[in-house]
Amino acid sequence: DESNCPHFGMHPTSHLEIHEEHAYAYLYNLRRSFVGPVKSTLLAEHILAIDEKISALLIELPAREIGGQLPSWDELEKIKAAAHDKQIKLHLDGARLWETKPFYNREYNEICAGFDSVYVSFYKGIGALPGAMLLGSVAFIEKAKLWQRRAGGTVQTLAPQIASAAMLLDKSLSRMPAYFKRTQQIVHHLSDIKALRFFPELPQVNMVHVYLPFRAEIANKVRAEIEEQYSIKMFGNALTSDKPEECYFELTVGENLLGLTDLKVHLIFSYLIDNGTEYSKQQSEAGR
Amino acid sequence: DESNCPHFGMHPTSHLEIHEEHAYAYLYNLRRSFVGPVKSTLLAEHILAIDEKISALLIELPAREIGGQLPSWDELEKIKAAAHDKQIKLHLDGARLWETKPFYNREYNEICAGFDSVYVSFYKGIGALPGAMLLGSVAFIEKAKLWQRRAGGTVQTLAPQIASAAMLLDKSLSRMPAYFKRTQQIVHHLSDIKALRFFPELPQVNMVHVYLPFRAEIANKVRAEIEEQYSIKMFGNALTSDKPEECYFELTVGENLLGLTDLKVHLIFSYLIDNGTEYSKQQSEAGR
Repeated sequence: DESNCPHFGMHPTSHLEIHEEHAYAYLYNLRRSFVGPVKSTLLAEHILAIDEKISALLIELPAREIGGQLPSWDELEKIKAAAHDKQIKLHLDGARLWETKPFYNREYNEICAGFDSVYVSFYKGIGALPGAMLLGSVAFIEKAKLWQRRAGGTVQTLAPQIASAAMLLDKSLSRMPAYFKRTQQIVHHLSDIKALRFFPELPQVNMVHVYLPFRAEIANKVRAEIEEQYSIKMFGNALTSDKPEECYFELTVGENLLGLTDLKVHLIFSYLIDNGTEYSKQQSEAGR
Repeated sequence: DESNCPHFGMHPTSHLEIHEEHAYAYLYNLRRSFVGPVKSTLLAEHILAIDEKISALLIELPAREIGGQLPSWDELEKIKAAAHDKQIKLHLDGARLWETKPFYNREYNEICAGFDSVYVSFYKGIGALPGAMLLGSVAFIEKAKLWQRRAGGTVQTLAPQIASAAMLLDKSLSRMPAYFKRTQQIVHHLSDIKALRFFPELPQVNMVHVYLPFRAEIANKVRAEIEEQYSIKMFGNALTSDKPEECYFELTVGENLLGLTDLKVHLIFSYLIDNGTEYSKQQSEAGR
């Protein structure tokens, strides 16, 4: 509003681009530019390279669609400085912000410093009822309220959501270091299964993308078998990767995987690879 | 979308006009015409008198801002026929639809028949967690989902809201006739307090506007006294009426007033009038 510039920037895998039906254009008459490469995080150099005037830039920490990648702490500081120099407002998409603390080993207020506005979610990492919070200056929040009302977001009471977030916040946050450590352990422990590939290779938060050498439909079939046999849902829905004969899924490490022994995790992933490979072979033979 | 006509109609006291910061214009690029008089309900004759092309018309049953007024059943049928003849889609704002059944003495599906889309709320009359439902054809709902997502309305789970509505719906609906009857009784019983005026004079649902012969600030002061003395909050916030020396409040009859004896109701309203009149006199003497 204030900049008189309806142009903003975001990473090509931003939630706004992929999951919100281009609301920014349809509802808010905004234009966007993509900033940063598709497969890795947005860096200060990408901000410095922007040659149009943009009013605001969205940064997602961690970037979910690329396996939870994070810029290093030094790089994050450079990002903040670059945006500040170019008078670009920085908005933090912190849907999974809670998961970044073990990686940065900094307090949340240090991570958020330099952002003009911050969004955090309470249902993912915290496990509360669906709800979120927007933070910014008083003047910014007053304006946001107006637009929230226009979008139909003024709910008569949010007491249940607030209560559930307040109840769970401290406990859930205290678990984050353990989840991150377990993610690193699991990736390390599975490194002998050569058919598995992790992206990023070294997880930066308690999520990582796992690539499999067969089609998504086969992965989902084996997932259902695993669910039946081991009573554990290891992933949500495998998706086709850039290559049609390959797929990937998002692995999020929480209480479930914390309680599972290394042996059992290894057993389940071996089962996934062995049966997936077998079904894939059968399928290609049948197709001949 | 389908009509290629961004122009719709609604009553001048519609929620969209008064309480939603003109979202229809700011977010959806729609234009509106007011249909019907400010102080009474929209009728078929007002639809027939529209001389512009409008694609859709919003009807609120009951119309909250005018004391819960309803068109008669015959009139409602004429409204539906007029809209149909003019090929105007009818949308029902049924935030308080639940309260209309005792007046019409018809089933909800009969009341809603002829509307192309219907909105109902679960937190007001039903007392559930804030939540609502939109009904219409499958094709219409598919489109509505797209716009709901754009507006940020896709919530990860609505299970708590659905559970609370499902738990309370039948019981709450079964209380509506008693609430309506009690509203009529109360208005009848208070008719000897001449300084009170009800709008509409004969309530059509379990809500009615009550007019008081003094300023809103005085009414709110006495309301706080009543709350302290009788432990009952009789109304939310009195508002200035068209005349500055007069105010009104919305009286909604539910469990609270069902359990209160006629005598006590009379006592409380007498207290409200007596003390309000007294404070008003003191105030005007002090101002001389």
